[in-house]
Amino acid sequence: MGMPIRIGIAGLGTVGIGVVKILRECSDIIEARLGKRVEVVAVTAKSKEKPRDENLDGYAWEENPLDLVNRNDIDIFVELIGGTDGVAHEAVKLALSNGKHVVTANKAMLAVHGKKLAELAESNNVSLKLEAAVAGGIPVIKVITESLAGSNIKRVMGVINGSCNYILTRMEKSGLSYETIFKEANDLGYLEADPQLDVGGIDAAHKIAILSSLSFGTVVNLDGVTIQGIEKISIDDIKHAADMGYRIKLLATAQITELGLEQRVTPCLVPDLSPLGGLEGGTNMVVIETIGSDPIILQGPGAGRIPTANAVVSDIIDIIRGSKVKTFGRAASLLKDVHVSKGSTSTSYYIRLLVDDKPGTLAKVTAALGNEGISINRLRQYDHNATKAPVIIVTHETTSSSIEIALKKLSETGVISIEPVALRIEK
Amino acid sequence: MGMPIRIGIAGLGTVGIGVVKILRECSDIIEARLGKRVEVVAVTAKSKEKPRDENLDGYAWEENPLDLVNRNDIDIFVELIGGTDGVAHEAVKLALSNGKHVVTANKAMLAVHGKKLAELAESNNVSLKLEAAVAGGIPVIKVITESLAGSNIKRVMGVINGSCNYILTRMEKSGLSYETIFKEANDLGYLEADPQLDVGGIDAAHKIAILSSLSFGTVVNLDGVTIQGIEKISIDDIKHAADMGYRIKLLATAQITELGLEQRVTPCLVPDLSPLGGLEGGTNMVVIETIGSDPIILQGPGAGRIPTANAVVSDIIDIIRGSKVKTFGRAASLLKDVHVSKGSTSTSYYIRLLVDDKPGTLAKVTAALGNEGISINRLRQYDHNATKAPVIIVTHETTSSSIEIALKKLSETGVISIEPVALRIEK
Repeated sequence: MGMPIRIGIAGLGTVGIGVVKILRECSDIIEARLGKRVEVVAVTAKSKEKPRDENLDGYAWEENPLDLVNRNDIDIFVELIGGTDGVAHEAVKLALSNGKHVVTANKAMLAVHGKKLAELAESNNVSLKLEAAVAGGIPVIKVITESLAGSNIKRVMGVINGSCNYILTRMEKSGLSYETIFKEANDLGYLEADPQLDVGGIDAAHKIAILSSLSFGTVVNLDGVTIQGIEKISIDDIKHAADMGYRIKLLATAQITELGLEQRVTPCLVPDLSPLGGLEGGTNMVVIETIGSDPIILQGPGAGRIPTANAVVSDIIDIIRGSKVKTFGRAASLLKDVHVSKGSTSTSYYIRLLVDDKPGTLAKVTAALGNEGISINRLRQYDHNATKAPVIIVTHETTSSSIEIALKKLSETGVISIEPVALRIEK
Repeated sequence: MGMPIRIGIAGLGTVGIGVVKILRECSDIIEARLGKRVEVVAVTAKSKEKPRDENLDGYAWEENPLDLVNRNDIDIFVELIGGTDGVAHEAVKLALSNGKHVVTANKAMLAVHGKKLAELAESNNVSLKLEAAVAGGIPVIKVITESLAGSNIKRVMGVINGSCNYILTRMEKSGLSYETIFKEANDLGYLEADPQLDVGGIDAAHKIAILSSLSFGTVVNLDGVTIQGIEKISIDDIKHAADMGYRIKLLATAQITELGLEQRVTPCLVPDLSPLGGLEGGTNMVVIETIGSDPIILQGPGAGRIPTANAVVSDIIDIIRGSKVKTFGRAASLLKDVHVSKGSTSTSYYIRLLVDDKPGTLAKVTAALGNEGISINRLRQYDHNATKAPVIIVTHETTSSSIEIALKKLSETGVISIEPVALRIEK
């Protein structure tokens, strides 16, 4: 069997404690599959006193992550602190420089510093692995970099923020407002300490920027992601969508078009009977489209102690098995800086307006769209009691740039009251 | 870059030609991901003259697979001949003994000789890889042996024979009989040369026996699979199931219970709104349930040139990247021979009978079930014009052994005309 592999864990929140738990409870399974034992040696976290579900008495306690990294008895450093910069980033850099393998779930750090960290790992001949960073329990990193290593990927998309999907499905089922359900999710601890990371689409943007790099061999480009959160989705939008056979999902998409790399995180209407449309609660789904094949669809828990910790453990096992797969699936020096294209892929749009209830208003609305070459597939003015009328429009295929210009000009006419909502309809 | 990796391919059917195509058309992508070139050097197939979609002039032609294996300029032998025994098995044994890595899609061979071949690979320190053997385009082998290497898997199940799912969904949509759609599928070339392998559930049994071994660390045990094909499913069964909110799928399942290893391939009723219930045509799906996590669901093309060939290519790439993952995810010597349990897991059943239309018949039917402790949830006698009445029964939870005994005793009473159909209802 040889010497056990020694692990140091920085960050003992949900996932960190999950890793401790799996390495304890599944040690027989892991030893059988691996032919080696894996042992936690030392840990660190913000507070030593905080009550935790697992007994940590057997492990050395370090006061900070850098001290943990500097221990000589650690083979693999597991970073579960989080955050783009700061101590997580410092500790990972130090570990890689010291020739220690690193397993991380830190999507924010990878979305910003991914290429440099991958280069650092390569130049020190160690692994930097990231399965837990995207879609927790779904092994999407491995599927893209290994199972599809010979495939020409044309588009990757999915629901990769469970908190937003929880809010949208809860709104749908309860009929309650965004504000009410947002508060409920926050009280239940389902949202990040800064909830804007979730509902503002930033967490999903971190993840799609990483998936994009893995899929297309491009440099991680977080700034190139068009981001729209779910804050403006009303219960009426959800009902209107349902009337037409759709559900609203926060969809993250990356694709290579003739115009360059297009990455988006936006609420979209998807058919309710499609795999994406059927997703409930915190479940995640990633759809990978390749040339010459029907899509591969991966579904599973997007977060949670055991699923995410299992992703960390699978990376640990890969490293021990001697995996030579590089962080982004190829040498970091080969990652290409490609042109970012925004708003060029066309699709139908759902538009919700609140217009003045007076003669000529609809003419102005339809003219503003028509002037940008946008033709209307369906239009419905809803019953109302006030001087303002809700209008729902479904367009034929058009681009987001055309929609943006048309809505801007429409706003300038003064006939609409609130900021219009425009959502892509994905087939 | 170093020397290219040299491939020999035995078998130039759909998948073999697909491998040639991918290695040609995606050579840049593969070289970027791998840092090495991959080249086909020599090929063999039953007929050299048969017209094929790819030009094979640049490759050496060998008259038989053993000659191909014996070439000194082959690093990896790709076996796409098929068949449990015969030349495929001989060639794989020879290749492994000669220290050559092997990639195969041969589920029949692996389901019978898997353990011995894995041992041969290990003792010669080479890889024997099998991603293409199960569920073509779905990377289920890698997900189980690598992504879930630290997980305690409790059940794996899925629709893993696309031809049967094609037949069942076509029957449903067309309202035509099993016999008609079977002939259609056969004429379209969707079935194996021996169609019984598909419709009799044997192909799915090969696959679930392999998945079972990977998931539970048990010796591949094909004889331990309870097999029931789709031949007795009538269009009426499909309609009755639909009336109750179900669809009929040929479901392969493996699980470890307190009584041992239970493996089944049987047509089942699954809720039409569930992921399995939503599957159309030749698409496959595998659901993996682990302790402490919601299930992971993988969906994709179960067969087809590019998806299956891509699985072969991903194995080739894994080998070149130096993957040390063993054939069944752990040392073959550690695979356990566990007790086979049949018919112990309980579930509700759908039963279709054709009974004599005379007084006392239903009493005999319900008594036969009641005597085995089977209670009835729903019973419906359908309208009819003859002296025989179709009766549909949905039971409460019971075991397949109880169902078998009850139906056998019922047959002995002489009140039922055709052999009863009994199908599991899976939640």
